[in-house]
Amino acid sequence: MTLELVLAPLQANAFKPFGDVIETHDHPEIINYGQTEKFADLAQIEATAAGGNAALHLFRSQPVAFPIRIEFLERHPLGSQAFVPLHRNPFIVVVAEAGQPPEPNAVRGFITNGRQGVNFHHGVWHHYQLSLVEGCEYLVVDRAGPGSNFDEYRLGQPLVIKRLPA
Amino acid sequence: MTLELVLAPLQANAFKPFGDVIETHDHPEIINYGQTEKFADLAQIEATAAGGNAALHLFRSQPVAFPIRIEFLERHPLGSQAFVPLHRNPFIVVVAEAGQPPEPNAVRGFITNGRQGVNFHHGVWHHYQLSLVEGCEYLVVDRAGPGSNFDEYRLGQPLVIKRLPA
Repeated sequence: MTLELVLAPLQANAFKPFGDVIETHDHPEIINYGQTEKFADLAQIEATAAGGNAALHLFRSQPVAFPIRIEFLERHPLGSQAFVPLHRNPFIVVVAEAGQPPEPNAVRGFITNGRQGVNFHHGVWHHYQLSLVEGCEYLVVDRAGPGSNFDEYRLGQPLVIKRLPA
Repeated sequence: MTLELVLAPLQANAFKPFGDVIETHDHPEIINYGQTEKFADLAQIEATAAGGNAALHLFRSQPVAFPIRIEFLERHPLGSQAFVPLHRNPFIVVVAEAGQPPEPNAVRGFITNGRQGVNFHHGVWHHYQLSLVEGCEYLVVDRAGPGSNFDEYRLGQPLVIKRLPA
């Protein structure tokens, strides 16, 4: 049996238990002699546990197609992980709160608006980024350093995402 | 009198004295069950000096027009600063090596290919990002924390960028 995972539009408040939504807002600072709006400190970068440091990568993902089957979640116990889409298309974010591996009904799914990025806080369970169009690139900021920073968990029951929200 | 600053296409080797070029290459790792190419560790993030931490921002810049006058450079002595263009257009990068404030003829100018980002290493003199089209957004990763992390220097002689390379 598979349970359906229904997607919600990504919003900062709903995402708070999992991390940060990286997006512009209405109260930037003005810098560079008036040339630039700065939207400051949009993500809590957690990278220094046990001698680690922040690391920056590019990821390029192949798309998935509906229905999307969710069987595994992963977490990074020692650091946050931010994904900012360079492709400017919506992508799917699947998460569950940090702690014990989640029951399937504790898993949440979001669809971004195409300009939003996300930052998973350390320990937050998540699926790898689910892109909907060809060759999507992401800027990723996470942690490099000593220690085991990757756990994977197979859900007791697969979830299926059937479609985008209406 | 103004000196002309001639732009060169941005390439990793030529940029090495100043920092990292953030771009894809031909030897990614394959992760996420084959779904994703990972271009790993593209920038040396320097953020932890004196109790600091990495910070993530969005910058939105107004464009500049040729001829572009370069009068000031800045540096961040305590951390690196990465700029990744979400707008996917070329932008202009102006730099000089870390150390004493530079003579005007030690300043270098580069034009990106529209997909490249840059990471200035700590102490590297640089102009703020120079965008050529309206409303350019950048993902910025730098350092937050105690201590003075901003110096500005007025060049002894202004530089002028007249045009893009042919």
